[in-house]
Amino acid sequence: MAKDNFVEQIADIEKDFPQWYTDVVIKTKLVDYGPVKGTMVIRPYGYAIWENIQKELDARFKATGHQNAYFPLLIPMNYFTKEAEHVEGFAPEVAVVTHAGGEELAEPLAIRPTSETIFGSMYSKWLQSYRDLPILINQWANVMRWEKTTRPFLRTSEFLWQEGHTAHAEESEAVEETMKMLGVYKEFAETCLAIPVICGKKTEKEKFAGAVATYGMEAMMKDGKSLQAGTTHFLGQNFAKAFDIKYLDKDGALKYAYTSSWGVSTRLIGALIMAHGDQRGLVLPPKVAPYQVVIVPIAAKKAGVLEICAKVKQLLESAGVRVILDETDNSPGWKFNEWEMKGVPLRIELGPRDIEAGNALIFRRDTLEKTEYKLENIVHEVQTLLKTVQSDMLEAARVRRDGKIVYANDMRGILQGVESGNFVKAGWCGCRGCEDKIKAETAATARVYAEDETSEKCAVCGKNAKHTVIFARAY
Amino acid sequence: MAKDNFVEQIADIEKDFPQWYTDVVIKTKLVDYGPVKGTMVIRPYGYAIWENIQKELDARFKATGHQNAYFPLLIPMNYFTKEAEHVEGFAPEVAVVTHAGGEELAEPLAIRPTSETIFGSMYSKWLQSYRDLPILINQWANVMRWEKTTRPFLRTSEFLWQEGHTAHAEESEAVEETMKMLGVYKEFAETCLAIPVICGKKTEKEKFAGAVATYGMEAMMKDGKSLQAGTTHFLGQNFAKAFDIKYLDKDGALKYAYTSSWGVSTRLIGALIMAHGDQRGLVLPPKVAPYQVVIVPIAAKKAGVLEICAKVKQLLESAGVRVILDETDNSPGWKFNEWEMKGVPLRIELGPRDIEAGNALIFRRDTLEKTEYKLENIVHEVQTLLKTVQSDMLEAARVRRDGKIVYANDMRGILQGVESGNFVKAGWCGCRGCEDKIKAETAATARVYAEDETSEKCAVCGKNAKHTVIFARAY
Repeated sequence: MAKDNFVEQIADIEKDFPQWYTDVVIKTKLVDYGPVKGTMVIRPYGYAIWENIQKELDARFKATGHQNAYFPLLIPMNYFTKEAEHVEGFAPEVAVVTHAGGEELAEPLAIRPTSETIFGSMYSKWLQSYRDLPILINQWANVMRWEKTTRPFLRTSEFLWQEGHTAHAEESEAVEETMKMLGVYKEFAETCLAIPVICGKKTEKEKFAGAVATYGMEAMMKDGKSLQAGTTHFLGQNFAKAFDIKYLDKDGALKYAYTSSWGVSTRLIGALIMAHGDQRGLVLPPKVAPYQVVIVPIAAKKAGVLEICAKVKQLLESAGVRVILDETDNSPGWKFNEWEMKGVPLRIELGPRDIEAGNALIFRRDTLEKTEYKLENIVHEVQTLLKTVQSDMLEAARVRRDGKIVYANDMRGILQGVESGNFVKAGWCGCRGCEDKIKAETAATARVYAEDETSEKCAVCGKNAKHTVIFARAY
Repeated sequence: MAKDNFVEQIADIEKDFPQWYTDVVIKTKLVDYGPVKGTMVIRPYGYAIWENIQKELDARFKATGHQNAYFPLLIPMNYFTKEAEHVEGFAPEVAVVTHAGGEELAEPLAIRPTSETIFGSMYSKWLQSYRDLPILINQWANVMRWEKTTRPFLRTSEFLWQEGHTAHAEESEAVEETMKMLGVYKEFAETCLAIPVICGKKTEKEKFAGAVATYGMEAMMKDGKSLQAGTTHFLGQNFAKAFDIKYLDKDGALKYAYTSSWGVSTRLIGALIMAHGDQRGLVLPPKVAPYQVVIVPIAAKKAGVLEICAKVKQLLESAGVRVILDETDNSPGWKFNEWEMKGVPLRIELGPRDIEAGNALIFRRDTLEKTEYKLENIVHEVQTLLKTVQSDMLEAARVRRDGKIVYANDMRGILQGVESGNFVKAGWCGCRGCEDKIKAETAATARVYAEDETSEKCAVCGKNAKHTVIFARAY
């Protein structure tokens, strides 16, 4: 019965992963399509996840010395031309304002696809002396990149993100910042999203337009594809020279600063869905779940049931647990399905018999296990279980992922590897031709350099390998 | 000495209020001008105030049952034409995207000046049955209104705000929501911003384009002008009919919903500045001040001084106080000026003699009083003082404002009243002609209907008064 019901609602995850994804995001009311093609409405259930992500990340940014600010949405088009690689990378995706206040504008304005240029122009104005450095600013904002093919959370014309932009006196400090924020992202992804990520440097082809070096964190989705979940960029003096970000050093000389930038976006919600979801729908890690616990009354009309449920809710709320009591007229079975689809980590079932026996049944969404607990210890049990679920989800994802990383020595190996839904480690000579060939023949791209540089030969040309690269098909 | 220093930095508040405002917002680094005319960069010191405002308001919205969501920035132009008054009000101010992704768009897109239309289109899609009501959604977002004359925080092409949009089955419920959120704004303005506000209904001329009724909260600035600090709108079925927001009621009939909307913006930062600021710069109420306390070491190089300062900082932080220890090389006098200009509510001065005597000097920014306290009680004293400063600032603002509300029986009285920097209460017959005449001759506009409807005659035409209106010049 229950099975049939799910099958009705969402596509089979094993048979049609893309359709499963679409069904899940729409039917759980995470998101809806906006009226303008390629835009999304992030509905309350989806936005609550984003708020939890923001809260966790924001605390980490502040703990590492960053402050928030807000820079304008509109950027003069000519700013993009000041950094040659940057304009090449972003100009094709830009949305342009040409009219405002009933008149045609003298110069067209770009809606920010990213804000290195406008941060750069202001830093140039603010920065005077070495005493003003480092500048460590982040903003939470919407950005726009016009995309041909769009999917909610993964690729939309508008999305929400944070972008950190920093300026430093020394090259080493900017590099350190770039690596530090990569570490912050990784710790956050593993601790809060329960997603094990692989971090590393990107190839020249895959790096950010205008960066000296880009570092990415890659997450494996359940179909074996990779999702770039965050990036940090060491920008060298590229933007400092383009925007004249200079300071008077102790030695009396005017010097260019070194800058970095780094960002994660509402894509992370897509990562959550595809890293943990299953046949029944979402499986959300407690740290970012809008509701950590749903209480479902059984035989709700029997005397005392709703009162006890409300009491349990209140106790859990007082302990800081995010909890919802489903008091609607729907049947318990309907509610089970609904809240399982919505991925709530724990479900407490409470009926007259449970209450009489002083017990509560708790269902774990991640393992689908149901266990009886003493009602009198319910707060402690829930708090313990939430921690267990959080760490078990990370561990399960790590086991899944580690079982799907393979090595390949040649093109055939790479193809077979990615066709079977793996990340493939392979040697690469470092030339663009071999990288392009892999993409053309396998639809896989270089995600990041692997930490273990063990390959001796390039899997394409057989020449000496410069790097061992993780190749995967990617979102 | 100190006086001269201030005069150098910021214009005299008594002699040139507008220049004082500009000097203060720029020199305290609250804000800077963006590269596109009319835009602003909200710098970390200004954005920290906005974060505190957001935190306080967001908690209140959630406590009254609202959820956050995010709706797209871009709205099809034709949406605006669906509600006749709405398009008339907003079309002239809209910024328009005509090109994106390297191509001209088939239909131009508006950057949201406000989001009634796009919320309306989605509510129409989501709303099925009376069980789905009420819908209570808020969003924190940027909006754009192209303005000819701009001033940081007060009127800029882009600004940040929150906009609540709700739908209800009954007219009475939508009216109740409109009044409830006005009450939430008022309580917030008084409790957190220490600004006493006058709330009331707006005239037809001053109401929101598309509303049945608009309610505003008006705050008196130190120059006697009024600043509209927030508005709530009862929209009746205007947008429900324009966007087909219908539901199936219990009785089986399809009915239009009633909607409301309400918003406050980064204008509130402008209100804070002009309601409390003085000759020396900002005076920030503790609840929203980025730093509530600054610790200035005296003779910082003497043994033990910095250690004790750091210890006090740590104790205050542990108690939840936002505190900064100024360890820079600048002189104490320079630091006093700087942090007074930045409006930090309390300054703790700690030097060798204070420490030896077991004392600390605390300076109150609002009253400019300096008092000695026992170091051993410092946390308690600071916490008590912060509460005192918060309530004293509200009380002082209330006394200031109440002393500048006058009555007028005729046009001359209105003119004299507003010329002397007052809010003027006067009778009004209710006709647009008299309202326009007051504006033409006094530059004052109808702010809200007064609570005390005591006037018998219209101050313009002498006919029977329908309302007693508060007139003022306004930002």
